[in-house]
Amino acid sequence: MMKVPEHQVAGHKAKEGVLGPLVDERGRFYKPLQNEDRGSTEVWFYSSLSSHRNKENENEIPLAFFPAFHGTKEVEASDCSGLHPHLVLEDLLHGYAKPSVMDVKIGSRTWNLRDSEDYINKCLAKDRDSSTIPLGFRISGVKDSLSSWEPSRKSLQTLSAHGVVSILNKFVSSDASTDSLPDCAFASQVFGPVLDRLLQLKAWFEVQTLYHFYSCSLLLVYEKEDVDRESKVLVKLVDFAHVVPGNGAIDHNFLGGLCSFIKFLKDALHH
Amino acid sequence: MMKVPEHQVAGHKAKEGVLGPLVDERGRFYKPLQNEDRGSTEVWFYSSLSSHRNKENENEIPLAFFPAFHGTKEVEASDCSGLHPHLVLEDLLHGYAKPSVMDVKIGSRTWNLRDSEDYINKCLAKDRDSSTIPLGFRISGVKDSLSSWEPSRKSLQTLSAHGVVSILNKFVSSDASTDSLPDCAFASQVFGPVLDRLLQLKAWFEVQTLYHFYSCSLLLVYEKEDVDRESKVLVKLVDFAHVVPGNGAIDHNFLGGLCSFIKFLKDALHH
Repeated sequence: MMKVPEHQVAGHKAKEGVLGPLVDERGRFYKPLQNEDRGSTEVWFYSSLSSHRNKENENEIPLAFFPAFHGTKEVEASDCSGLHPHLVLEDLLHGYAKPSVMDVKIGSRTWNLRDSEDYINKCLAKDRDSSTIPLGFRISGVKDSLSSWEPSRKSLQTLSAHGVVSILNKFVSSDASTDSLPDCAFASQVFGPVLDRLLQLKAWFEVQTLYHFYSCSLLLVYEKEDVDRESKVLVKLVDFAHVVPGNGAIDHNFLGGLCSFIKFLKDALHH
Repeated sequence: MMKVPEHQVAGHKAKEGVLGPLVDERGRFYKPLQNEDRGSTEVWFYSSLSSHRNKENENEIPLAFFPAFHGTKEVEASDCSGLHPHLVLEDLLHGYAKPSVMDVKIGSRTWNLRDSEDYINKCLAKDRDSSTIPLGFRISGVKDSLSSWEPSRKSLQTLSAHGVVSILNKFVSSDASTDSLPDCAFASQVFGPVLDRLLQLKAWFEVQTLYHFYSCSLLLVYEKEDVDRESKVLVKLVDFAHVVPGNGAIDHNFLGGLCSFIKFLKDALHH
C-alpha cells in the first residue's frame, strides 16, 4: 500500500534505489530516520512538541503549524534494504488533487554552533552561493501540478530578489508554465491566507525561546484543480533534523528570514 | 578645543598615540575616516541619508535614529600624525553630565558577501566565539559614569542569555557597581522609552530595502545624574562603515538581532 509521494518538491526522493519518504492511502507520511544525529533530533523535536502542548505561556506552541506526529515505526525501506525506522507523520498533501506546492528553507544560516566543522563549512559555502545569505531564505522547490511547472532545484537556489518575485507571481497564476507574463489570478486567494498565517507564525517567533530551527522549511500548498471553489491553502513547517534548544534567546535567524519572505509576499499581494 | 570623548564605550579610543574620535565644545564629534573602504562607505552612507530625506514611501528613513552629519573635514589627528580627514557628526553625548551608555552591535552576522575572505574569516571566528551567533547581538560596551561601573569589553563579548539579563538589570539600577542584587530602579523610566523607539525602528526594518547594516551598533544613553527629573533617553544607530545596498531584500540579519534584543528588553521591563 506504500508509495512514493507524488508531489514532493524538496529533500531526498524515494526513487531509483534511494532511501526516501513513503506515503500510504490513509494519509500518513513515512520519513526514514536519517543517520548521525538527524533522525534522533527529529524524533526528539516531535516528541517535545506534544509534551509542551499544555503550557500556557509565551512559549505555547502553535501546533497547527506542525504536521501531526504518530510515533516511529519500522517499515520496508524504499531502497529495498529491508526494515528501517521511520517517523510516522501526517501526509500534508493527502486529499489534494492538483496541488501547487512551494518549499522555502527559512533563515540566512542553515548551520548552528553544535554542528561539526565539516558540516558548517559545507552549509556556509552553500548559503553564500545561494539566496540564503542575501535574502534570508531560499526556495528549495516549487511545483504546479496542474500545468506541470516545476523549475529545477538548481535554478531556484541562486534566485535574486527579482527572481523570487517572478517565482511568487507564477506560483499564483493560472498557467505558471508559459513564458508570457504571469496573470497572478490567485494572488489574493492564496497569498492573503498565507500572509495571515505567517503573521501568526511571526508573532510566535518574536517571543518563543524553546527552539532554534536551522534548515527548516515552510511548506505552502493550495489546491489548483478548482481553486475558485476551494483553495485549501496550507502553511506548515517541515524538516526538524537540525532543531536545537533556544537557550533563552529567540530564533533571530529564522525570524529574520521569515520577515524577509513576508515582505516579498506582501509585495506580491499588493502589486 | 578638541578633546577625547569622555564616555566612549566601544570602538578605537583616541589615547596613547592611537587615531580615534575627538569632540569639540560645540557638540560635534570628529570621527577619523577609516582606511580601506570603510571611511568612504561611511561618507557614502551619511550622504545618501540626506539625499533620501524627501522620499515618501516605505523606505522613508527615520532620520532621528541617526546622528546629524555635517560633512567631512581635515583636522589634526589624535595620534599627532598631522591632518587627517574626519567625519563631522553630532556628539550624541553632548549635554549629558553623568550618562549611562550602552553600545550593542546588532546582527548575528557582522560580515557581508562583498567583504574579503580574510575579513569574513576574522568576523566569523569572532561571531562564533561571542554572543553574536547565539543571541543575534553582542554588547560591545556599557558604562555607568555615576557609579563608575564599566565591565571589561572582553567579559561582555561572551555573555550568555543569562548574562545579558544581568547587564540589562544593572544598567537601570541605582548602583550598578555593587555586587548586591540590582534594584532595577529605573527600568520603566529607561527601558519604557527605549522599547517604544526600538519598536519604531523595527517597523522600519520590516519594510526598508535600502540598506543592510553590518557591524552597526545601537547606542543607548540616559542621564543618570538626576534621572528622576529627566532621564533624557537616547536611542541611536552608529557605525556605518559596513553598510551595503539592500538589493531588494530587507535587512533580515539586523532585524532578527534587533528582535532578539527587544525580547530581552521586554523581559527586563516586565519582570
